[in-house]
Amino acid sequence: MSEPGLDRLSLNQATIQSWDMRATIDGCARAGIGWIGLWRDKLAALGARDTARHLAATGVRPSSLCRGGFFPAATTEERARRIDDNRRAIDEAAEVGAPVLVLVSGPPADRDLDTARRQVEEGICAVLPYAAERGVRLAIEPLHPMFAGDRSVVVTLAQANAMAERIGSPTIGVAVDVYHVWWDPVVYAEIARAGERIVGFHVSDWLAPPPDHLLGRGVMGDGLIEVRRLRQAVDAAGYAGPIEVEIFNQRVWDMPPEDVLVLVRERYLAYC
Amino acid sequence: MSEPGLDRLSLNQATIQSWDMRATIDGCARAGIGWIGLWRDKLAALGARDTARHLAATGVRPSSLCRGGFFPAATTEERARRIDDNRRAIDEAAEVGAPVLVLVSGPPADRDLDTARRQVEEGICAVLPYAAERGVRLAIEPLHPMFAGDRSVVVTLAQANAMAERIGSPTIGVAVDVYHVWWDPVVYAEIARAGERIVGFHVSDWLAPPPDHLLGRGVMGDGLIEVRRLRQAVDAAGYAGPIEVEIFNQRVWDMPPEDVLVLVRERYLAYC
Repeated sequence: MSEPGLDRLSLNQATIQSWDMRATIDGCARAGIGWIGLWRDKLAALGARDTARHLAATGVRPSSLCRGGFFPAATTEERARRIDDNRRAIDEAAEVGAPVLVLVSGPPADRDLDTARRQVEEGICAVLPYAAERGVRLAIEPLHPMFAGDRSVVVTLAQANAMAERIGSPTIGVAVDVYHVWWDPVVYAEIARAGERIVGFHVSDWLAPPPDHLLGRGVMGDGLIEVRRLRQAVDAAGYAGPIEVEIFNQRVWDMPPEDVLVLVRERYLAYC
Repeated sequence: MSEPGLDRLSLNQATIQSWDMRATIDGCARAGIGWIGLWRDKLAALGARDTARHLAATGVRPSSLCRGGFFPAATTEERARRIDDNRRAIDEAAEVGAPVLVLVSGPPADRDLDTARRQVEEGICAVLPYAAERGVRLAIEPLHPMFAGDRSVVVTLAQANAMAERIGSPTIGVAVDVYHVWWDPVVYAEIARAGERIVGFHVSDWLAPPPDHLLGRGVMGDGLIEVRRLRQAVDAAGYAGPIEVEIFNQRVWDMPPEDVLVLVRERYLAYC
């Protein structure tokens, strides 16, 4: 297996911060990128209806909506509010035709990781019927363990797989992001285990040491991740969907967006 | 189980950078801290013989020597040099009476993590007979996955346990550092699995988000880690040895060392 087809390339909107929703969709269309990974803040700015219209007009399709999740909280009331917000995110995904809502689980409310992890699973179970009804799949995305304290108590693919297996619904899946899982000694076994549950695949690269906690991701080829090997493993597990390029990096954000699109396409073909 | 006895408190020398070897040993003696975790650079500055003498004169005992490891390299020659350096580290540990040499495995030489991990295991096997002969146990220390690219391809306790089991010698053990393992959903199962193989236990805390990639560790009680729960798990697994306080943090390094010793002792009693 060599390079993946260009028809699987998706631009996750987080890669280009300076463009609004319309500009990003237009940029994808001009660059021949058929997919886009949407973010809720940009979707809110344009509105779901106009986003859906602009997508339809250009032929660019949404691969996913980022993000739901953030379930753990100190009080019952706050957890209920988070669940409501996830229902709104499901509505938005359905309205724009995004087949998948990516879930970033959220950090613990205190030192009690076990409780936080239970609250994530309870939160997912609470919104699952609504997601099924609206035809939106939920993707548990394990984040790199360096985000365990501030973004996600789900930190390994094994953990996400176990949670998805317990929940046991076709509506629940996992998202594999190479930046978050590349270090894991059992990542290939867990990708195989995930199989048809894989509903998203995200690429970037690991710069060593990371230049920033949050904005330290590299462009594919600039770092240490065996991106192609991971992509081939995900394909072998049964995934044939879009491949989202998602790069949080101030240097990339500071580049002219058109140049970012050229770079993303080149590196996608060379390394994915 | 409540607080551990003060007789198990060890000051890892990395916590106080401004003191040389003599000053740190004297500081421990004055503060009633009976153990010290030594570093090779400070040991080299004073010399192994004088370090051993000063330890004997004050009654402070070395809990470990940091660090060997760094096995993966691009060429056979360089890997042989690393192995030689590990033999020297074993000599130094034996000369000062440190029962344990902590191994930080080292980063990969390129994108090939599997090869790097094999080279770590080969490197350990190469120096193991020498360590056994000199009466020094080797501790594989899994580092937090955020160091996979620049410091250690061994990133989980499961991986360290599996490696130690394959090597299968009483000379090989593992070191559990709460900063490196706290996020792991299977950490308690892996601590139980490690059992008598645990030859070191290190404490600090996780600040969220970490203020720095390398120097972002907190003092116990300032962050998210369930330090006492982890210590009790390690004790339950059979570990009864020294508890090393190892805090890489510029703010701590900038404090008057005597104040650091007071803080370390207080927080050790309150949170360990």
